[in-house]
Amino acid sequence: MRPQDIIKKKREGGTLSQQEIQFLIDGYTSGKIPDYQLSAFTMALFFQGATREETVALTHSMLHSGIVVDLSTIPGRKVDKHSTGGVGDKISIPLAPAVAAAGVCVPMLSGRGLGHTGGTLDKLESIPGFRVDISLDRYVEILQQIRVCMIGQTHDIAPADKKLYALRDVTATVESIPLITGSILSKKLAEGIDGLVFDVKVGSGAFMKTYDDALKLAQNLVDIGRMMGKDTVALLTDMEQPLGYCVGNTLEMLESLDVLRGGGPDDVVQLTVELGAYMLKLGRSVDSIEAGRQKMSQVLADGSALEQFLQLVKLQGGDPDVIMQPERFRRTAHQQAVLASRTGYIQSINSEEVGIASMMLGAGRERVDTVIDHAVGIVLKKKVGDNILKGEPLCFLEYNDDARLQEASRKMEEAYSIGDCLPEKRPLILEVLTHS
Amino acid sequence: MRPQDIIKKKREGGTLSQQEIQFLIDGYTSGKIPDYQLSAFTMALFFQGATREETVALTHSMLHSGIVVDLSTIPGRKVDKHSTGGVGDKISIPLAPAVAAAGVCVPMLSGRGLGHTGGTLDKLESIPGFRVDISLDRYVEILQQIRVCMIGQTHDIAPADKKLYALRDVTATVESIPLITGSILSKKLAEGIDGLVFDVKVGSGAFMKTYDDALKLAQNLVDIGRMMGKDTVALLTDMEQPLGYCVGNTLEMLESLDVLRGGGPDDVVQLTVELGAYMLKLGRSVDSIEAGRQKMSQVLADGSALEQFLQLVKLQGGDPDVIMQPERFRRTAHQQAVLASRTGYIQSINSEEVGIASMMLGAGRERVDTVIDHAVGIVLKKKVGDNILKGEPLCFLEYNDDARLQEASRKMEEAYSIGDCLPEKRPLILEVLTHS
Repeated sequence: MRPQDIIKKKREGGTLSQQEIQFLIDGYTSGKIPDYQLSAFTMALFFQGATREETVALTHSMLHSGIVVDLSTIPGRKVDKHSTGGVGDKISIPLAPAVAAAGVCVPMLSGRGLGHTGGTLDKLESIPGFRVDISLDRYVEILQQIRVCMIGQTHDIAPADKKLYALRDVTATVESIPLITGSILSKKLAEGIDGLVFDVKVGSGAFMKTYDDALKLAQNLVDIGRMMGKDTVALLTDMEQPLGYCVGNTLEMLESLDVLRGGGPDDVVQLTVELGAYMLKLGRSVDSIEAGRQKMSQVLADGSALEQFLQLVKLQGGDPDVIMQPERFRRTAHQQAVLASRTGYIQSINSEEVGIASMMLGAGRERVDTVIDHAVGIVLKKKVGDNILKGEPLCFLEYNDDARLQEASRKMEEAYSIGDCLPEKRPLILEVLTHS
Repeated sequence: MRPQDIIKKKREGGTLSQQEIQFLIDGYTSGKIPDYQLSAFTMALFFQGATREETVALTHSMLHSGIVVDLSTIPGRKVDKHSTGGVGDKISIPLAPAVAAAGVCVPMLSGRGLGHTGGTLDKLESIPGFRVDISLDRYVEILQQIRVCMIGQTHDIAPADKKLYALRDVTATVESIPLITGSILSKKLAEGIDGLVFDVKVGSGAFMKTYDDALKLAQNLVDIGRMMGKDTVALLTDMEQPLGYCVGNTLEMLESLDVLRGGGPDDVVQLTVELGAYMLKLGRSVDSIEAGRQKMSQVLADGSALEQFLQLVKLQGGDPDVIMQPERFRRTAHQQAVLASRTGYIQSINSEEVGIASMMLGAGRERVDTVIDHAVGIVLKKKVGDNILKGEPLCFLEYNDDARLQEASRKMEEAYSIGDCLPEKRPLILEVLTHS
């Protein structure tokens, strides 16, 4: 087999065999097949797409380029959630401990923020001492002890994905559904899970801006996951405005703690409960989604989800005192309001702009090696449908360094659109896909 | 500018600016932009194509990545011919000296054979001592002296093309009309020419197998050449069977010498005369194509073309004695006939199979670093439309090493198709394109 013949076959719209795909991925991972052949291949794949079988082969090769964790020593089913990324999306933080409190094991590998989207790992690290870089052996131990562990991708998890993802980023081949599917599933299936709930975001702050694109991706994730022997469900959820009121690592941690205490913003609570209900259903801990919702609401209300999170923080090296006394989190030196230039109703909040403004303040990464400031971020005072008077604050920018403050402030002004009429209310959950 | 943004723009079907294309090509040539970004770009270009203006920008950047020879010291117009490559295509060898003998300067940079197609340089090197690797200064001197010089691409001619061509070969992005056009023109325009005649081959032995594809390429070459200020004409010519009777370097040189002596196979003579007539017209040495044909026939018949070739051989270090006494060329130790398995008319001769059979005997290169045997090759005894009796020889394989003899023999049997009826005669010249 020669890589160029396989590339040509895909370029011509042919269907590749499992052997051909494995040959490419194995060769690339080991360094035998160079970057320039893989980038031509991924571009051909972008144009020609892949069959379900080809995507399974791709995912399988990427998954088995590294370790697949064995969680068979832990009784019961293990279920995780994957979000395609949004702005203000802190759901994993209340969700994972709440589902664990409700009785289902949640082995969770998360990522870091890049560009306008945040990352769960960065938010967790706003807790002093919290370690996300722990070994897979320790990860299994923590799961055995408390049914939940939240760590980052280690070097032995899907190395093919790591290499390929970096390549796609610089060769404009990120937006390919088979490649996105392979990338997501190869990491998630390495966790040792039985079931997976996808939160596929749609809208201005999402990777998928249109409903149709998001639906296609969701369908693909659900189908390929199933073909690989996992129980899968996908929820299409709204990302036309940020989730909750807080954007930025510490700020989102504080909002998450509110949810774990039985409070928090409606949308964050609703999505946590909904995703959790599906996770409990896949985990066979409840018989119906409605029973799942009740269970989720209960663990958030009775403090057991918070207690589970406290255990997690302790086992992962974090300071438990800040969890119980959130005022001890380090906050910014300064804050500045962004004021409304007119009276009216908030029509929309462009989430991508909000994410970029937050990044400009230092909360996010422009490049993978940017050092972030956990304390900074944005607190929204108004969300879509709220009314506002001219001169009232739309939001507050919490900052330490004012280098890009004016730019961020302008971004936030642009992100808000204010009009005369009350806008139509959009549902948070747009669609639920179980299988095709 | 970031390469990935330019790649994405092309991927999305956008039109790139001259600056964007130049940024990519300059960056790639200097090593600032890596292979993997260029291969993703070329694959995107394969799918999205390029406008005429983008192709001009691409050609311009590739051309000016190296030296463009200044031939202004030589009076009159300089005209070259480019063939897209075929089997048995030795036309350049009688053509260049004949056109020079007819009064027009022919500065010719040629290539080597690869795969099933031969290369002019390899054929020239069948003459003992003949040097194709001479400096550009010496090339200009020879042109000043005898109006014709035949050399290979030097490292300072279109280095971007050299690098890009090697990359396209291993990333399945060879078959892209804008890239083919840029590759051909960047080398040819570097010669210092005013006019260029394209011989675009169509059929089983050609790069372009279908009439439509060949027409598209021809039109593009003519148009882009013109947009870059050159006089251009393209002829679409038949490559459904090899040109002439000989395939292999020494064998093709001998057949070329026959043509230069006023003899030779009809098709080789016809194509030499026809291409030469257009070259003389572009060179403004004749007023009409018909006058060009007469002039070409005359220089082949009266020995002046042969004399011009003899001068060329002497100036490029070759042994002039073999030209005058062709029996002194080194020939193979063995030959073997391939016999007809039935009686009938030759319906077709698959040129690609013939080219591969010849390569198997050692005349061509499977890889760029293959060492070839100039003496070996194939002498066809029958061509399309000829009748044959069962057991009569279709062709002779001339060989030194019998390692792949049986395989080559089988290929030749397969290449010939014999039927009961006299096949319809195909014209050699299918179309002439002057401009769109």
